[in-house]
Amino acid sequence: MSTHLPESQPLAIKVPEPTLRRLPWYLSNVKLLKQQGEQYVSSTQISKEINIDASQIAKDLSYVHLSGRTRVGYEIDAMIEVLEDFLGFTRMHRAFLFGVGSLGGALLQDSGLNHFGLEIVAAFDVNPQLVGQELNGIPIFHSDEFEQRMKEQQVAIGVLTVPIEIAQAITDKMVAGGIKAIWNFTPFRIRVPEEIVVQNTSLYAHLALMFNRLNMNV
Amino acid sequence: MSTHLPESQPLAIKVPEPTLRRLPWYLSNVKLLKQQGEQYVSSTQISKEINIDASQIAKDLSYVHLSGRTRVGYEIDAMIEVLEDFLGFTRMHRAFLFGVGSLGGALLQDSGLNHFGLEIVAAFDVNPQLVGQELNGIPIFHSDEFEQRMKEQQVAIGVLTVPIEIAQAITDKMVAGGIKAIWNFTPFRIRVPEEIVVQNTSLYAHLALMFNRLNMNV
Repeated sequence: MSTHLPESQPLAIKVPEPTLRRLPWYLSNVKLLKQQGEQYVSSTQISKEINIDASQIAKDLSYVHLSGRTRVGYEIDAMIEVLEDFLGFTRMHRAFLFGVGSLGGALLQDSGLNHFGLEIVAAFDVNPQLVGQELNGIPIFHSDEFEQRMKEQQVAIGVLTVPIEIAQAITDKMVAGGIKAIWNFTPFRIRVPEEIVVQNTSLYAHLALMFNRLNMNV
Repeated sequence: MSTHLPESQPLAIKVPEPTLRRLPWYLSNVKLLKQQGEQYVSSTQISKEINIDASQIAKDLSYVHLSGRTRVGYEIDAMIEVLEDFLGFTRMHRAFLFGVGSLGGALLQDSGLNHFGLEIVAAFDVNPQLVGQELNGIPIFHSDEFEQRMKEQQVAIGVLTVPIEIAQAITDKMVAGGIKAIWNFTPFRIRVPEEIVVQNTSLYAHLALMFNRLNMNV
């Protein structure tokens, strides 16, 4: 029932961003059903659980070549395998982290990222109390060593957790060194060449949204 | 030039979500300008820095009653004060954290959240090795103690960092106990009554988006 993605081009399917944002919800939902011993699930069942139209779910899943069978629905094992593969959670993506402050240090300690395909192999900072140390087994180098380490280890992803005043300078340095995607945790809107992928995850912007809506309700 | 928000109802302005998402960018941008010794900034200057239309910036800022003067622009100090106040970063919002796993533990150690108005006052877990301990000065209680602690400390925000299989059950417990807003870090789409605020911040969904776009570019 489910077609696996061709090995050679595992992710070369153009999927709209809203679909991409919903796929992890379906994945966590069916993982839960699997734990409960279920083997099949219909889009209607998922729809009830997560409050998204069943037709939207079916459409989203069709992008990754998953289709349900009449009366039986989707095979849960196949769905988990295809979604995890498509979302990139089954391959390790090596990353460097820049800025071992409070948030950077916290991310280094979050081993959960490993289960979702991100392996932070080294961190960079300029603080002499941090350089030369390890955190959760991850070595911390001086920022000046980045270019050298980049030559030794082919790394495509940079995690940006520096203070805002150096966010752009460190971004430029990363791009010049060959980093292809930047996971930006700063509230600063960094500028990059067109071909560089930027994923903004500003916890503070999310906090502001939550505070604002909370106060609207009070 | 800038009107301060009335003290009594600091956040009771209905602002569209896209505007709310952009305001923290303006804030970090003008904080940086202040550090560089600037006193005034025009929407055109901000526009060049962060690549958003100057007219959009002016419109966004007008929602929080900030308006620039001809030829002088916006007064930076006033802009920082109004934005920080509006975004809720100047008041402490007390929160409980549920689930001291890898990510939950990391968040407890991120003191940066304090600077943006979130104070995690206690954490809950069922792991006997964690219950009774402290992390970064924050006490960890058994989950069964939540209702009691809730009566002692009026807390409006719950941070959800539990495994997906108990995400809904813990959400229900939080809501029953009086939590008004949930910061959901799980990839699980939780269901809540209409009046409860949910802010989803799934690091894993963001990772998936980044991996996908990275692979499209390779």
